[in-house]
Formats: sequence, C-alpha cells, structure tokens
Amino acid sequence: MAEQLFWLAPIGSAAALIFAWFFYRQMKKASEGSERMAQIASYVRTGAMAYLKQQYKVVTFVFIGLVILLSFMAFVLKVQNGWVPIAFLTGGFFSGLAGFFGMKTATYASARTAEAARKSLDGGLRIAFRSGAVMGLVVVGLALLDISLWFVILRYFYPIEGGDGHNLVLITTTMLTFGMGASTQALFARVGGGIYTKAADVGADLVGKVEANIPEDDPRNPATIADNVGDNVGDVAGMGADLYESYAGSILATAALGAAAFLGNPGLQFKPVVAPMVIAAVGTLLSIVGIFVVRTKEGASQKQLLSALGRGVNFSSVLIVIASFFIIRVLELGTGVWWAIVCGLLAGIIIGKATEYFTSAGFKPTQRIADSAATGPATVIIAGIGTGMMSTTVPVLAVVVGTVLAYLSAADFNFANVNMGLYGIGIAAVGMLSTLGITLATDAYGPIADNAGGNAEMSGLDKEVRKRTDALDSLGNTTAATGKGFAIGSAALTALALLASYVEELKIGMIRLGQNTLQFIDGRAIETARATFTDFMYYFNVTLMNPVVLVGIFLGAMTAFMFSGLTMTAVGRAAAKMVDEVRRQFREIAGIMEGKAEPDYARCVAISTKGAQRAMMLPSLLAIFIPVVTGLVLGVAGVMGLLIGGTSTGFVLAVFMANAGGAWDNAKKYIEEGHMGGKGSEAHHAAVIGDTVGDPFKDTSGPSLNILIKLMSMVSIVVAGLTVAYSLM
Amino acid sequence: MAEQLFWLAPIGSAAALIFAWFFYRQMKKASEGSERMAQIASYVRTGAMAYLKQQYKVVTFVFIGLVILLSFMAFVLKVQNGWVPIAFLTGGFFSGLAGFFGMKTATYASARTAEAARKSLDGGLRIAFRSGAVMGLVVVGLALLDISLWFVILRYFYPIEGGDGHNLVLITTTMLTFGMGASTQALFARVGGGIYTKAADVGADLVGKVEANIPEDDPRNPATIADNVGDNVGDVAGMGADLYESYAGSILATAALGAAAFLGNPGLQFKPVVAPMVIAAVGTLLSIVGIFVVRTKEGASQKQLLSALGRGVNFSSVLIVIASFFIIRVLELGTGVWWAIVCGLLAGIIIGKATEYFTSAGFKPTQRIADSAATGPATVIIAGIGTGMMSTTVPVLAVVVGTVLAYLSAADFNFANVNMGLYGIGIAAVGMLSTLGITLATDAYGPIADNAGGNAEMSGLDKEVRKRTDALDSLGNTTAATGKGFAIGSAALTALALLASYVEELKIGMIRLGQNTLQFIDGRAIETARATFTDFMYYFNVTLMNPVVLVGIFLGAMTAFMFSGLTMTAVGRAAAKMVDEVRRQFREIAGIMEGKAEPDYARCVAISTKGAQRAMMLPSLLAIFIPVVTGLVLGVAGVMGLLIGGTSTGFVLAVFMANAGGAWDNAKKYIEEGHMGGKGSEAHHAAVIGDTVGDPFKDTSGPSLNILIKLMSMVSIVVAGLTVAYSLM
Repeated sequence: MAEQLFWLAPIGSAAALIFAWFFYRQMKKASEGSERMAQIASYVRTGAMAYLKQQYKVVTFVFIGLVILLSFMAFVLKVQNGWVPIAFLTGGFFSGLAGFFGMKTATYASARTAEAARKSLDGGLRIAFRSGAVMGLVVVGLALLDISLWFVILRYFYPIEGGDGHNLVLITTTMLTFGMGASTQALFARVGGGIYTKAADVGADLVGKVEANIPEDDPRNPATIADNVGDNVGDVAGMGADLYESYAGSILATAALGAAAFLGNPGLQFKPVVAPMVIAAVGTLLSIVGIFVVRTKEGASQKQLLSALGRGVNFSSVLIVIASFFIIRVLELGTGVWWAIVCGLLAGIIIGKATEYFTSAGFKPTQRIADSAATGPATVIIAGIGTGMMSTTVPVLAVVVGTVLAYLSAADFNFANVNMGLYGIGIAAVGMLSTLGITLATDAYGPIADNAGGNAEMSGLDKEVRKRTDALDSLGNTTAATGKGFAIGSAALTALALLASYVEELKIGMIRLGQNTLQFIDGRAIETARATFTDFMYYFNVTLMNPVVLVGIFLGAMTAFMFSGLTMTAVGRAAAKMVDEVRRQFREIAGIMEGKAEPDYARCVAISTKGAQRAMMLPSLLAIFIPVVTGLVLGVAGVMGLLIGGTSTGFVLAVFMANAGGAWDNAKKYIEEGHMGGKGSEAHHAAVIGDTVGDPFKDTSGPSLNILIKLMSMVSIVVAGLTVAYSLM
Repeated sequence: MAEQLFWLAPIGSAAALIFAWFFYRQMKKASEGSERMAQIASYVRTGAMAYLKQQYKVVTFVFIGLVILLSFMAFVLKVQNGWVPIAFLTGGFFSGLAGFFGMKTATYASARTAEAARKSLDGGLRIAFRSGAVMGLVVVGLALLDISLWFVILRYFYPIEGGDGHNLVLITTTMLTFGMGASTQALFARVGGGIYTKAADVGADLVGKVEANIPEDDPRNPATIADNVGDNVGDVAGMGADLYESYAGSILATAALGAAAFLGNPGLQFKPVVAPMVIAAVGTLLSIVGIFVVRTKEGASQKQLLSALGRGVNFSSVLIVIASFFIIRVLELGTGVWWAIVCGLLAGIIIGKATEYFTSAGFKPTQRIADSAATGPATVIIAGIGTGMMSTTVPVLAVVVGTVLAYLSAADFNFANVNMGLYGIGIAAVGMLSTLGITLATDAYGPIADNAGGNAEMSGLDKEVRKRTDALDSLGNTTAATGKGFAIGSAALTALALLASYVEELKIGMIRLGQNTLQFIDGRAIETARATFTDFMYYFNVTLMNPVVLVGIFLGAMTAFMFSGLTMTAVGRAAAKMVDEVRRQFREIAGIMEGKAEPDYARCVAISTKGAQRAMMLPSLLAIFIPVVTGLVLGVAGVMGLLIGGTSTGFVLAVFMANAGGAWDNAKKYIEEGHMGGKGSEAHHAAVIGDTVGDPFKDTSGPSLNILIKLMSMVSIVVAGLTVAYSLM
C-alpha cells in the first residue's frame, strides 16, 4: 500500500505543473490593455529578465566552483558519495527554474491585472491570484518532481527490498544533499533580489517622495521602473526559490529521520519515509482544488474578496488535516504522528495571527508607532525597534510549544524515544508547508497587484483603477501575514529536523570512512551503524559543558548578526548610489519634472543590478564557508553549536526584522489614511523615514535569515564526512 | 602560605575604601565656583538623590518580596540552605551602596571640575578623574569586603580543616548566591537609570536642539537639569552597580569552580579558591598606584592627557600580569592558569580596540555613517544598524578564541580535564576585571566631565571652559571604549563560568534533597558527590539532541530580544512625555526663550523619575521569573539551554546595540566638526536623529543586557534546588 501511495508524489507533481501551465495560458489570453500599458510592462519585464540572466550567470560560476569542490570531496578525498555533486546541481537548477517561471508569469500578469481591474475588482483579483498560483504550483510541482525522480533513481541503484534497512538510510541521506543546491540558489536569489528591490525602493522613495514630492510610481521618477523590477526579482523570484527550499528541505529531512527511526524494523521503514512525500502530494492536490474555490461574484466588496481568499486557504488546510489522519492511519504510523502535524499547523496559524497583531494598523502596536510620529522620526524608529523586538515573544513560544508537543506526541510522551520525537518535529514542518501551493499563491499575488498599481499609475489610467489595485495589494498584505507565519515557523522546525539529520549524515560518513565502532572514553564500544542519536551526542561530547559547543553557539549567534549587517549595509550603499543617480537625472535632464522628457530608466535598473550582484557574493559565500571552517577547526561539537546558535538567534532576529518592517510600513499607511495629520504632515514625513528603514528589514535581511539558517545546516550535512575525517578537534 | 595570602583580600578592600575616602575629601575641599555654579550643581544633586531614594524604595519592596520567597524555599521547602536569604540581602545592599557613594561623589565633583577647568585643563582632569576613582575604588572595596566577610563567617560554621573538601564546595557555592542580590540591584539600577537618563536626553534633544534650535545644556531648556541628573543616575550609579556585580560574580564563580576542580584533593583545594580573591586584591592595590600615576604637567595638551590616562591603566594592567604569574606560582596552580588570565586580558584588549575601530570617528565605519547622512536620516539609521551588526564579529571571535584558549591552557590541553578548563574560563574573567579600580575610574570620570560641561554652559562661564570640559569628555570616550571592552568581555566569560557553577549548585541541591546517587538509564550509578560535570550532562541529558535543550536556547534568545524591546519602548514612551512637557513649558511660560523666566526643571525631573520607576518593573521581574518558570516547566536541561541561549544572543545583541549607538554618536560629532556641511546642515540634522535613536541603544538596552545574562544565571543558581525538587520534566 505504501508503495502505491508513493506514486501520489509524481502524480501531485504532474497535476501541479499541468494546472500551472493552464493558469499561465489563461492569463496570457487576457488583454494587456493600451499600448502604453504594454510598453511599461515590457520595460519591467526586460529589466527583470536581464537581472535574472545576470544573476544566474553569477550563480552558475559559484555552482561550478562548488561542484568541483564537492567532486573533489567525493572522488579524491572519498568523504562522501558520488551522487552528491549531481544532486546538488539538480536542487539548484530546479530552485532557479521555479523562481524563473514565477517571475515570468508575474511580469506578464501585471498589465493584464491592471486592465482587468479597469472593469472590476474581482476581475483583477482572479488574474492576479491565478498568476500567483502559477508560482505556488510550479514550486511544489518541481520540488515533488525532483524528489520523486531521485527516489526512483536511487532505489534502482540501492535496492531496498529484503535488505537490513541501511540502503533506505543511504538513499534518504543522499537525497538530503540536493537540498544544499536548492538552499544555495535560494540564498543568492533572496539576498541578490532583496538588495536589488530595496536599493531601488529606498532610492525611489527618498528622492521621489521625500525630496521631489511626487507620488509613488510616478513615471517622472527615473527609479520607478527599477522599483517595479525589484518587486519581481525580490518578492517573486526570491520568495519562490526560498520556499522551494523550505518545502523540499522539510520533506527530505523528515524522510531521512523516518528511515533512521525505523532502521531496526525494515518491514515498516518504508512507510515513514514516504509519509512526508504523500502528505505533500495530497496537500498539492488539495491546493489546486482550493485555488478554484477562490472566486467571487461580480462587484464583490473588499471584505468579500478577503473571505474568498481565506475560504480557499482554509478549505485546503482543513482538508489536509483530515486527509493526513487517513494517510497516517494507512501507513500505520500511529496517531501521535498525526498530532505532530496538527501541532505544526497550529503553531503556523498562531505565528500568523501574532504577525497580524503586531504589524497591522488595526491593532495597538502599530497605532502606537504611528502615534510616536508626533515627536519625529527618532521616536518612530525607537518605537518600531521596540515593538519588533517584543513581537518575537509569541512566535518563539509557538515554536517552542509546537516543537515540544510534536516531539512528545510522536514519541508517545516518552522523551527517550528520540528517533520518533525528532521525526515528529520534521513532519510538523511538512504539515505546515503541505498546502504551500495555495498559501504561496496568496503571497505571490501581492507583488503582482503592486506592479499592476504601478502600471496603472504610469499609464495614467483612471484613479479608480489604482484604488482597486491598492485594495488588492492591501488584501494581499493581510493574507500574506499567515503565509509568512508558515514560512518562518517551518524554517525553524526544518532547521531543528536538519540538526538531527546532520547526526545521521555523520553516521553514514563514519561508516564510509571505515569507522565501524564508536569507542567511548569509559571503555564502552558500540557498532556505529547501530548507534543512537544519544550515543553520538556522548561520543562527540555535544553537551553544554563542552566549551566547543558553547563557543559554537556564540559563533552561530554572531553569524546571524554579521549576515544581516552585511545585507543591510549593501542596501544602504546601493540605495545611496540610486539617490545620486536620480538626483542627477532630475538636475541634468531638462523637462523631466514637467513630463516632457522621459527619464533614463535603464540606468537605474543597471545600478540596482550591479549593486545587488556585487553585494550578494560576500554574505552568501560566508554562509557556505563558515560551517565548513567551523567543522574543520572545532569539529562536530562546534558545528552543532553553530547550527543551533544560528538557528535560534537567526529565527528571533528574522521575526524582529520582519515585524518591525511590517509595522513601520503599516504605521505609515495608517497615517496616510488621515490619522495624525495625514499625508504631507510632519508626522507622515517621520513615518516615511520609518518605512524606509523598514524596507531592508522586512524584504532583505529578515527573509534572507530564513535561508541562512537552513543553508548552514545543509552545508554541514553535505560536508559531514569531511568534518569527521579532517577536523582538528 | 595560601592562608596568609587570603588576608590580602580584606587588606585590599580596606586600602580601596581608605583611598576612596581620601580622594573624596580632597575633591570636597576644592572650590565649587560661583554661586550660580553651586546652585546648578545642587539642583542636579537634589534631583539625583531624590531619584535614587525613590529607586531604592521600590527596590526595597522587591527585595523584601524576594527574601520572603527565598526564606520559604530555605526553611519550608528546604531546597536551599538558610544563608541564602541573608547573603542575597548583603549582595544587594553593598551593590546599592557602591552606586550611592559613586553618585554622591559625582554630583559634588561636577561644579568643582568646571571651576578647576577655568584655570587649566589638567586641573579639571585631576578633579574629575580622582572623583571617578572614588567610584572605582568603592566598587572593588565593597565587593572585596563582602567576599572576605562571608568567607570568614562561613568558614567558622563549616570548618574546612581536615575535612574531605565538601565544606569548601558548600562555602563557595553558598557565597555565589549573594551574587544574585548584587545582580538584582544592578539590573534595577541599570534599567531604571538607563530609562531615566535617555528619556531626559532624548526629550531634551528633540525639542531643544531639533525644534527650538538651542544648544545642548542651554538653561532655557526645561529638561536640561533632568538630562544632567540622568548622566548621574544612569551612567554613574547604574554603571557602579553593574560592575560591582560583574566583579563579585566573576570572583565567586571562579572560587566555586576551584573548589569543585580540586574536590578530590583537599590539601590543594584551598589554593584555587583564594586565587581569584588574591588576584583581585593585588589588582586593587595596583589600581591605587595606577591612579597616582595619572598626572600631567601644567598646560598639558589633550594628547598628553590621553597618554597620562593610558599610562595609569597600562601600568596597572602590565603589573597585574606580572604579579599574577607569581601569585599562581606561589599557589602552585600551574602556569596554564596564568596563561588563562593572559588570554582573558588579551581578549578584553582586542574587544576594546575593536570597539574603538567601529565607533570612533577616526575610522572608516563611523565616517561612512556620517557620509550616509547626505541622503537623509533613513540611510543614517540603515548604515548605523548595519555597522553595529557587523561590529559584533571581532568581539565574538575574541571571546570564542579567548574562551577556548583559557580552557585549554588551564586544562593542560586536555579537553577531558573539564574542571580545570572551566576554572580557566572563570579566572580569565577575574584577570580581565582585576584592575577594575582604575578602569572604572576612566569610565566614571566621563559623566563627571560631561556634567561639568553642563554646569559651565548653564552658569554662563567662558566658552574656553566648555571647550576644556568637552576635551575631557571626549578623552573619556576613548578610554571608556577599552573599559567597555573589558566589561562586556568579562560578562560573557563570567556567564560561562556561572553556567558551570550552576551544575555545582545542582549537585549541592541534590545532596541536600537526599539524592545521593545518580542512576543512569543504561544501569550505571554514580555517587552524586563524586559525579563530574560530564556525568551531570548525561544524567540530565543536556545534549543538543534533547528537544528541551533546543527550545531552551530559543527561549534564551527570545528573552534577550524581549527585554531589549521592553526597555527601548519604555524610553520611547517616557521621552514622548518629556517632549510634551518641554513643549508645554515653552508655550505656557512666558519669557522662557528670552531667558527672563526660569523653566520648571523639577517637573521634568519628576517625569523622568516616574517613567523610569514604572517601566523598570516589568523587564526586571521577567529576568527573575523566566529562569524560575523555565526550571519548573522544562527542568535542568531547559534552564541550561535558556542560559546559553540568553548569554550568546544577549552578548551579541549588547555589542550590536552599544556599538551602533556609539558610532551614531560619533558620526554626529564628526559632522559637527565641520564635515558634510557641519552644524546646522541637513546632514547634521539627519545625524542628530541617528544619535537620538542610538541613545537608548548604547545607554539603556545594551548595557542592561550585560546584567540580564548574569542575573538569569544567578537566579538559576539560587533556585537550582527548587528546580531539582519540583520540575515537571
């Protein structure tokens, strides 16, 4: 039965890709509107594609370098198996592809959304949302494709039938390494795209809104096309690659933990391995149905639209909870595992609600930031940072309680049942992300609506159109809060599961190196292949009285801060260059402010591209090399300290930055709605400064941290063999 | 010999207190200048004393509550010994006394420094520096007094001669609990004082400098007296209590680790226990000599003054390195322990140099922040946050390398020699703080010079005088960077040593509860009294595969952020009230701007006092209750996770906040020196906003984190018995 259920994964993948194609064709058939609209859309599309091309060029070089290193480790040092370099490549390739398709769709959809919004609000919603769905479905479709493919290939080379269960451990731990390819691609996409989009945004706002006093997306602003390109490369392509990586990573980590948990019981072992794949596949099918549920009557109000979107997401979520119950039952994994999934989903929902509370203008915290604008920008910044820091409380508590409960329920409330407990943490993350197909659609549709607004503004469409696209955009912000909750919560849970997978990889690495027994200081000896997680902890002394673990935790905390510092600074520098360029164009191009001369959009696009490409290298390469160097110098204990230090601090820092940024953004919008003196008042001016500071917080550094913590885990997993063989300590 | 050496501790204490008294009398003899100067000084003094009185009142209630709880635990639940409540009280009392004396001296010294500066720069230096020295000496004198006293008392009740060494473990672990009193007092002082001073400062700046365009310390600004009071209660009293706690904590933790390390060897055990006391005592005597070394010729230049200060500090530091070598030799602890001290000192120096690099206007990072002012306040904030985050790299690496090397050298490069290794980490912290008498003097003299400048401005003294006090102030900023390096580095090392002491307390707690054997899951059993650190790690499963440890680390990271968020928000709120009040006075009191009517200073003082008192309760109580609740719910493994998570994230966050704040401050000063358009330019305006945001970063939240991490450790230590007896897990 489990064997048959597995085939749901390729079926889910095919369905996702077919419907993505269908939604894409449907969108392409819609009218792009006037010639001016099509022209502006083509500017943005060209800029975005040019950026992506440049980005992929750079990333290709990095990948070639890494493949050479990985091949050297596999074929010369023989510290890992030969599949790793190829698996690494496919992970990176598919992740990049997901971003590419998502962005291509988004850049075609914006003008069409604006055109549809000329007629009705729900017409605009349908085009924007279904275009966002293309991205959601491409991400889950490609991830399931890659996973199914590798599973079939590796089973061919390492037959699992009739064996003692070690081959399945080998297969799942090998598959895990393709996660590193996805993570690497994702980090470059997030960091590069994040720097690009915010350099353009900050630059456009500082000169356009603050100095020249022209509205957002005004065609007279030379940086406006770059700003719209940024929405696509950062918020669409970057997010696609990011969530591809979370999704694949959580499934792979859980499969590996499942193989380890049931190693002693080869008859059952296949079931926990396919469980995460099956849940993801069913979640994908339910997401497709959910996407069709999102529809409204002609002339629907904003509230009705919101409930339409909510209906789609809730529909898929409720059904996956029910479906998982039966999947787990058929696979005979015990109700505890199902409860772990429920814990994961609940933690995600709580994080989403908390995000909404701390960042929406409907609640006290954001209103207080708006109030503080009365005393100027300094107090706005202080209030935003304070609020952001305090907002970390609920998400951390949700993850803490969710993790402990997922562990305990999967382990039948027996702490010593470590294998099943860790499996529970992994499957909780899979549960959270199972309906990614639709939750990502609600996330990706935001930037499309945003771009549609930009197109409407620049094409001089009726004010009513802009109002509608703004409504769609703000609608997206609300649903996106839930999506972000799931993304960030699953990142923390996945990182914890990866920590456990790391220990599994150590085992495989030691066996490969011929270290078949673990010799303890007190004289005991255990066969490596049979050693438990706890045995490994004792063998490598991964306790909190080992100074190497303690300093590793310090290093992890520092890495998260250093990485954010680098990305923040990069945005600041690129934005400063953008400001100079925009000021220069205003000064030198005569007639630009009267709308008689067209600004040099391309030059601004080039500045953002160059700034992003240059600045993304250092932080991204550091994320790869720090775990390697830590492993070589401090050994396994140091690496595990690094990973948990990076995960905990990175998670909290990411929540802080995302929420502070979101709250500043909405405090500004709240004032623009007429509070505190409204648009153009001193208070508004102060709030715009807060919003500008928040831009890199919420769209560059914050989301990049999510990937950083997983990439560091993935790198450690891939080089586990190297660490065991060559570490100094 | 060790027995005789111990008596150096009370001798050092007496010497420190006598010289403090001598310097105090000397300062009081100097002229306070004109009537106006004396009057302003008395305003500030009255405000500061009123605040401190109010603060101590609140803290007294908290202490009464805690003593009742501790007595209940000692006498009803019987989970700790009966000395704890009294020891807790003396720790708090002496810590408060150190802050009180330091502040009293500072408030008498400011007008006298201004008066002396009318004649010459070095006259001003001598008064300010020796008044700062009063604080330095009172802190070390009282700490050594408290330590010596308790050591003598407890030895009377638990004789150590001829025993098996357990009494010395009992004595040292009991003494450790008075650290909790000191930490509690320090946290209230730092948080309350920090909120007070920054609410006043931000409020005074926002209306005075930015809106009304009047200079700093202008007597027409109603908040100016509150601002000067703030320098005293925050930067003097707060800092005194803070460092009292670090100093006492590091000595006590090291003594406890020493007793544990040599438990099996009662003949030697006394020596590692008194070693930290002796080193601290000798360091105190050397500090006194160093203070006398600080003198210059009449008419010395600023450079000569700087080198005079440096000479004093370097003199003491070099001599303590040499002296420790002989102390360690006489106590037969092995050269490795001496190297550990050297590692600690070097780490402190490196952190100090890095602080200087990242925050001084003489180097690129701060200059780049100043450059970013060209594009407005938003880019200043982004650049400052980015720089601050990146600046965490060097301090963390210094602590990491220092910790590992201190451990390894004390443990003779054998990782398994855990006891000696941890002792090495503790004594490295003691080494760092051994010359606190003089380093604290260089720190405390800054606010005195600052206040002298305020007095000069308000009394309408010659511009030349203000220039001199400014020179003294900026001089202090440079030397203070080193002092801060030592304070922050020692906090991290002390917290690591306290983590080890926690395990010692667990042992004592279990024995008290009659749990005389540790029964392991695998069937082994060990006598509790003989169990090693590593045994406890296995018994409580404090490994990184225990989910409770992992979520504990998350909770620790979150606590650091939440705590900072609460203090930031408190400053923001109190500052907003101050702004409203200052605006009201400008509006309602006629003639205030023409200098014809005197503003209502007292009302601003009252606002700051009330704001600080109210806002300090929640964060401070959370710091106490979080470790207790974590212990009761998650048990020992959860507490240890919480402590290392809080220490690592708290340390990195503290460095980030302190350095970002310092860099903003100096970027503003750099612009005021004439760069980027100088004072009054748009760039200057932007830099002032950065500086204002930086105020609570560097003077409220940042330094409070140092105490938070130690207080959480201290609380855990004190309630270790409760955790063992009543924990759910």
